[in-house]
Amino acid sequence: METPLCFKGKMGTIYMMPSRYHGEKILPCQNLLKSTKLYARIFLLIHLNPTMRKEAAMFKILRVNMSDLSVKAEDIPKEYEGLGGRGMTSAIVANEVPPTCSAIGPNNKLVFAPGLLGGTNCANSGRISVGGKSPLTGTIKEANSGGQAGQYLAKLGIAAIVVEGFPQENRLYKLYVGKDKYELSPANDLKGLGNYATVEKLKAQFGEKVGFVSIGQAGEWKMAAASIAITDRELRPTRHAGRGGLGAVMGSKGLKAIVIDPSEGEMAPISDKDAFKEAAKRFVNALKEHPVTSQGLTNYGTDILINIINEAGGLPTRNFSSGRFEGAEKVAGETLNKITQERKGVVSHGCMAGCVIRCSGIFLDENGEYVSKWPEYETVWAWGPNCGIDDLDAIARIDRACDDYGLDTIEMGNAIAVAMEAGVKQFGDAAGAEELIAEVGSGTPLGRILGAGAAVVGKSFGVRRVPVVKNQALPAYDPRAIKGIGVTYATSTMGADHTSGYAVATNIMKVGGDVDPLKPEGQVELSRNLQIATAVIDTLGLCLFVAFPVMDMPDAFNAMVDMVNAKYGLSLTADDVTALGQRVLKLERDFNQRAGFTPADDRLPEFFKTEQLPPHNEVFDVPDDELDTLFNF
Amino acid sequence: METPLCFKGKMGTIYMMPSRYHGEKILPCQNLLKSTKLYARIFLLIHLNPTMRKEAAMFKILRVNMSDLSVKAEDIPKEYEGLGGRGMTSAIVANEVPPTCSAIGPNNKLVFAPGLLGGTNCANSGRISVGGKSPLTGTIKEANSGGQAGQYLAKLGIAAIVVEGFPQENRLYKLYVGKDKYELSPANDLKGLGNYATVEKLKAQFGEKVGFVSIGQAGEWKMAAASIAITDRELRPTRHAGRGGLGAVMGSKGLKAIVIDPSEGEMAPISDKDAFKEAAKRFVNALKEHPVTSQGLTNYGTDILINIINEAGGLPTRNFSSGRFEGAEKVAGETLNKITQERKGVVSHGCMAGCVIRCSGIFLDENGEYVSKWPEYETVWAWGPNCGIDDLDAIARIDRACDDYGLDTIEMGNAIAVAMEAGVKQFGDAAGAEELIAEVGSGTPLGRILGAGAAVVGKSFGVRRVPVVKNQALPAYDPRAIKGIGVTYATSTMGADHTSGYAVATNIMKVGGDVDPLKPEGQVELSRNLQIATAVIDTLGLCLFVAFPVMDMPDAFNAMVDMVNAKYGLSLTADDVTALGQRVLKLERDFNQRAGFTPADDRLPEFFKTEQLPPHNEVFDVPDDELDTLFNF
Repeated sequence: METPLCFKGKMGTIYMMPSRYHGEKILPCQNLLKSTKLYARIFLLIHLNPTMRKEAAMFKILRVNMSDLSVKAEDIPKEYEGLGGRGMTSAIVANEVPPTCSAIGPNNKLVFAPGLLGGTNCANSGRISVGGKSPLTGTIKEANSGGQAGQYLAKLGIAAIVVEGFPQENRLYKLYVGKDKYELSPANDLKGLGNYATVEKLKAQFGEKVGFVSIGQAGEWKMAAASIAITDRELRPTRHAGRGGLGAVMGSKGLKAIVIDPSEGEMAPISDKDAFKEAAKRFVNALKEHPVTSQGLTNYGTDILINIINEAGGLPTRNFSSGRFEGAEKVAGETLNKITQERKGVVSHGCMAGCVIRCSGIFLDENGEYVSKWPEYETVWAWGPNCGIDDLDAIARIDRACDDYGLDTIEMGNAIAVAMEAGVKQFGDAAGAEELIAEVGSGTPLGRILGAGAAVVGKSFGVRRVPVVKNQALPAYDPRAIKGIGVTYATSTMGADHTSGYAVATNIMKVGGDVDPLKPEGQVELSRNLQIATAVIDTLGLCLFVAFPVMDMPDAFNAMVDMVNAKYGLSLTADDVTALGQRVLKLERDFNQRAGFTPADDRLPEFFKTEQLPPHNEVFDVPDDELDTLFNF
Repeated sequence: METPLCFKGKMGTIYMMPSRYHGEKILPCQNLLKSTKLYARIFLLIHLNPTMRKEAAMFKILRVNMSDLSVKAEDIPKEYEGLGGRGMTSAIVANEVPPTCSAIGPNNKLVFAPGLLGGTNCANSGRISVGGKSPLTGTIKEANSGGQAGQYLAKLGIAAIVVEGFPQENRLYKLYVGKDKYELSPANDLKGLGNYATVEKLKAQFGEKVGFVSIGQAGEWKMAAASIAITDRELRPTRHAGRGGLGAVMGSKGLKAIVIDPSEGEMAPISDKDAFKEAAKRFVNALKEHPVTSQGLTNYGTDILINIINEAGGLPTRNFSSGRFEGAEKVAGETLNKITQERKGVVSHGCMAGCVIRCSGIFLDENGEYVSKWPEYETVWAWGPNCGIDDLDAIARIDRACDDYGLDTIEMGNAIAVAMEAGVKQFGDAAGAEELIAEVGSGTPLGRILGAGAAVVGKSFGVRRVPVVKNQALPAYDPRAIKGIGVTYATSTMGADHTSGYAVATNIMKVGGDVDPLKPEGQVELSRNLQIATAVIDTLGLCLFVAFPVMDMPDAFNAMVDMVNAKYGLSLTADDVTALGQRVLKLERDFNQRAGFTPADDRLPEFFKTEQLPPHNEVFDVPDDELDTLFNF
């Protein structure tokens, strides 16, 4: 131990340790980060007492080496002990990946990790974090997903799977992970298959009591918009670690799929079972009590936001040219609910076991045939308002295509909107949009441009208005009408990403306070606090939607902390939890600095500062020097 | 005057002035540049005494505003007085362009400037510098070209043309520049034309005693590999400001062509005519005496380098996979000379009046029909060895196509080699390469990918081995076998660019010293000195090839300095001239820093450090921390 203890708990202690990364010269920090230079290279360590260590020692890190095709289970190195989810993936990436390496080359790593509360019966705790250097942004990246994989890995005692090395050219493999049984085997028979067909083939071999992680054609082709699919409870590849092109990293490693067999797994050890049970109950009650998590999301899915954001004048329409879409009603959650009921689809479906929010559903076509899970709000927006399209059936089909090819719907909707601005198709042309997504799935040259993301579309077609930050496309909230989210887009360690600090909640829904969405004041502080809180939630493996009660109801927050304490035998305070989030952000930002990012990259594209957005006719006017204070903590 | 004088001359003084650029927050400098922070934002000013001022006042800056279609001749503002060429373009860009703006948006500017020795009868002094923020690299950019435009502008008393603002969509214009007569007029009739057809149409209107500057389809489409064509003495659009996509900036401004009519122009004023004449004579003698500028280049063109670089094991072959090409002899300068003589083409052609080197020629096909000027060495390499092609006729046709569409041959040859690595065509497929360049000229999706440059090809097709620095493709010298040029690629303010500091001269040709090309030692110092010297040569408007005698023969260097002193009535020393080059580099680097570039960007792609290059089996091993000292002056 080189540095002093930080948090003392009943059964253990959280330490701070210096990074073991020594592979590269550290660039001088920007002024704004000077004070954090030291902290940024320190990783959090929950150091457990001997009793807990014994139990924790059951947890392993799987090292999957694609160069020699070995799989080794190793004890969790001290510097990663007690980490989970995003904290784990970001620590491993920051520690082991040279920041300037090729993201699709031999020196990148792809990390999968369940959260700190994974493997318990805490509600909505089964998220899986996927991390690596992003082929899209060049930054560190964590994208997390629902589905069953996170919970299954935790039950198998796997703290992380680290995929490293580089395969022989044109070889594909699959990884089987069971209880103390790991196998890498050829998967060339899956070559060129979409995620749906991949899962069908794997089901025939491995049965239906497993979970699958896979890539479609986009990942095989190393497209920068490629996602990683995670199957839901019914083994549909509908949940995705979507953003930042991590599917391309998996493709570059030649890893087509992971099969997770939880059959001999068991629940994670818990230090104080009674206390955990009591806190978990309070947490569930909060989720069931808060109107967003018990009514809004449950009945209308995330698509409930269409009308809300349209009303707020922040629904980006036709490549961020307006904040209101005349066809909003036709693609809104209320309509989604209505036609789902009419067609006898499923309303209120949970993507993972233990979900009490159940924000998803099953979308059927007019003949009652399955099309896709309910498209998320951001997907409906990306292909709907942002492309001028008001046809929910077309949007659901495109959602299905994106899930099948393995593509981030946000990146792709933006890519096609930028292509529409270039005149490749007309805004509003739903059939044209379907043709374009088919081009991506066919790997045509036009498809390659689109699959490389919105920034490459802009470069290829000479388009000036390209809504990206750090090369990643903006999600479904215009930063001129909802300025808090603009701060998150600009400063997030991930590139433009709403989930990094969802200021929409406070700007628009008035959850956790009320900050005027149209004023620049207070947005940086709001985004900062949310980014810190989100890093915690992502590290615990909780679904981000728990943030609604956590931000609004003091006991929901306390229950969350109490569960961590009960599981690990700690006595963390709220401040300790905040410090955890801060440290995750700092190590991510440190990676990005070493990769060459500076405050000049923490900016929205020029046109958001110069073009007014109707109907509020606002520009994004949070001053640069305020943005540069975001990481002052 | 806010800062102390620097250089005192007979008739004037060179001042240092703080920048007038106040539009944007200055980012904190990297440590390595801390000491230069102040200097980097200071521009050089040759402040002339009253007599010379009166003469200099004849020189104007033309402000061409594409928003209101006005053209205004303004006196040279004090901070730009006495600058020329690259010094002028870089000062205006650094001073007036927000570093994080969209390069194809309203806030970028495109600057044309003749050099400080332009408009004189100094040999090879007619280069024209073109500057702006690069759509390819995002850095500041200066690309200079031969042809007649530079000399003509100087004779018209124009120190710079600054194209600014933004046109109405889909409108094209041409600019006429005569003696005190400037006119912007519609040019929609030129829309979609290549440079050859554009020039033919303009000749019909303006006659043959003018010079033309134009863009082809690539520039109109804002392709990041688009060049700006400058006509030679016979009004062929064969000379190009090639690198960095400045043709796309011209396209974004809606400016299809500039017509320069020198008919009422006159030679530039000279302070001490006798002294100038004497120095100019010594300078010519040196050019005529040095074997490279009087024999090698004259008889075989720049293509003489094929055999030399192949012999040195540094001729990048099949996308930088080998340093020797089995078909080198078939595309070498010796062969070019031979078939040119056989077909009765032209050997030894000068691209501008006053050229005594005459490194160009005229390439005819087998039927004796004009195909193109002699392709440069870098062009022959890009389409030849780098694509595995050994067919000079095909290469000359592609050269013609690139000149016509308006494309940088280095960027395009790399783009297609990367596409070949992706399997789009096979290495060695000359007909396939011709098909691909035709796709670019047709604006197909595949053509858009290629026209966006090698980095976008890599992103679109998921290729890991992409030879770019700051997104600009590497020229014709492998940095593993010629390590000095690798330092220049990595650190140049322009992205990978051999002309920024041509260490090949010293590494291979032993001009100006002898630094072992295979050893890392001494390369940083070599590149630093060459980058400084080149900034001077580019500022004076001299052809870079004068560097051979200037580096080898003390009197050639002295003659160059003497000409500047005689023209401006100064008494600059060698140290003063070095200081001028240093300051140009510093202001360029300062722009790049404000645009968000850091030392992490001053690196070669990973594979140059990990893959050995046959036949020497070397990697690029100049240490990062040595690279980071390059700007320590």
